[in-house]
Amino acid sequence: MPVMTIEDLTDFLAREFPQVKNEFQIEEVRDMGLRVRLKVEERHLRPGGTVSGPTMFSLADVAVYLTILAQIGPKALAVTTNCSIDFMRKPAANTDLVADCTLLKLGRVLAIGDTLIRSDGMEAPVARATLTYSIPPER
Amino acid sequence: MPVMTIEDLTDFLAREFPQVKNEFQIEEVRDMGLRVRLKVEERHLRPGGTVSGPTMFSLADVAVYLTILAQIGPKALAVTTNCSIDFMRKPAANTDLVADCTLLKLGRVLAIGDTLIRSDGMEAPVARATLTYSIPPER
Amino acid sequence: MPVMTIEDLTDFLAREFPQVKNEFQIEEVRDMGLRVRLKVEERHLRPGGTVSGPTMFSLADVAVYLTILAQIGPKALAVTTNCSIDFMRKPAANTDLVADCTLLKLGRVLAIGDTLIRSDGMEAPVARATLTYSIPPER
Amino acid sequence: MPVMTIEDLTDFLAREFPQVKNEFQIEEVRDMGLRVRLKVEERHLRPGGTVSGPTMFSLADVAVYLTILAQIGPKALAVTTNCSIDFMRKPAANTDLVADCTLLKLGRVLAIGDTLIRSDGMEAPVARATLTYSIPPER
Repeated sequence: MPVMTIEDLTDFLAREFPQVKNEFQIEEVRDMGLRVRLKVEERHLRPGGTVSGPTMFSLADVAVYLTILAQIGPKALAVTTNCSIDFMRKPAANTDLVADCTLLKLGRVLAIGDTLIRSDGMEAPVARATLTYSIPPER
Repeated sequence: MPVMTIEDLTDFLAREFPQVKNEFQIEEVRDMGLRVRLKVEERHLRPGGTVSGPTMFSLADVAVYLTILAQIGPKALAVTTNCSIDFMRKPAANTDLVADCTLLKLGRVLAIGDTLIRSDGMEAPVARATLTYSIPPER
Repeated sequence: MPVMTIEDLTDFLAREFPQVKNEFQIEEVRDMGLRVRLKVEERHLRPGGTVSGPTMFSLADVAVYLTILAQIGPKALAVTTNCSIDFMRKPAANTDLVADCTLLKLGRVLAIGDTLIRSDGMEAPVARATLTYSIPPER
Repeated sequence: MPVMTIEDLTDFLAREFPQVKNEFQIEEVRDMGLRVRLKVEERHLRPGGTVSGPTMFSLADVAVYLTILAQIGPKALAVTTNCSIDFMRKPAANTDLVADCTLLKLGRVLAIGDTLIRSDGMEAPVARATLTYSIPPER
């Protein structure tokens, strides 16, 4: 079961990563899962009004990170060691992206999360990503 | 909707890949999805009685391949262009593996399928894989 | 052999992607390969002064994109379909990153590039990435 | 520097993995790298005489495994946690495959190896793979 609430996670993000605090909005925390929204702004866009690849990577990365923290608490600084990401469709123009993350493994040293990214309100995913985080030993 | 049944796919597999025909048993065909069982034999095992990595890769590969065929029919020879696979837990010893595949994209030239592999009867997945197939143009 | 020079590619980047034009500096174009530098600024950094994961993804993405363009010319809008990236070491603080890309395949519809990213002046890579680009048919 | 020779590794493979002992031939051990040959047999082939995807996965897997062992000795049972593999060209029919592995990271708990696979005597690679191994703590 999660040990951090939406509010806890939002405060943590604002404190530790002030540069992105208004970019991401956590919408749901559940057992081994989480949903987070990217509030799309001008700087996320490529010509044509669609969200850039690095922005989608960044959304997947934060989704898995927050899902891990929600389960283990804000005590450890997990780092991404691997990501595989597939870009499947062009996102809808000027539309928020919503990422749904599910943790497939939460081990002592490694955690693995799977994320589907959709344009808000659409069914077909625009991207999917799997990320591995390394969880450092407690000091 | 699928255009091939379990029986169609089983016949196709036996005819085109006779070397593996008794290895895989198709259990369910659904819209954009499929479940297939690997009937574990001695030659799939590593010391300790667990299924080897290449065998799990092979199961994920066949699961995505069959799911694509079920949707487009046996007319084209799709080839794997990319796979990312995570091994998350040791499979149960001497136990069949069951793969559940969902197609995330079925485009004109590329198809992408996501597969979860479990030891039969267990909830926690032992592996997950995403594969991209290239679909050759019709001749 | 490349059909675009460093100057051609730099002009193209400034014209098509004005938002990133001062971020990347192309240092070398060679047959099926290219080297590009990320000029690290405040906004690329995480707490501790190291470059963020999304920034490294972005560098790998642009490196492969430019390498493809250098070979085929500025005529087509290739899109990323897949990326696998491994983060291996913490980058040096406040130091530029340098990406070296090699194209492993330049087909009619798919191109695959491999990239090693290093902190400027260091030997051990901080990340590696492989990206697949889909090349749309000529109109 | 490697702590195991070609002969050491060959003996280890024959003892621990008797089922594959005649399949792989180690050709070179170097600092953080290794070359191993897959002696292609009937059972590795798909219709048309080309080597199957699972066989190439298996070759990449063993290449990285042996490269790690060569560096750290036969004391630990490393396990694959992740693989990304790209299949770029059809292998030459009825021809051995040769894998060249380079370790990009050899950490305390994770090792990452990059492998290029070629049909014997050809320059263009048929596949590339990156694998992560988890190295268990010493008992």
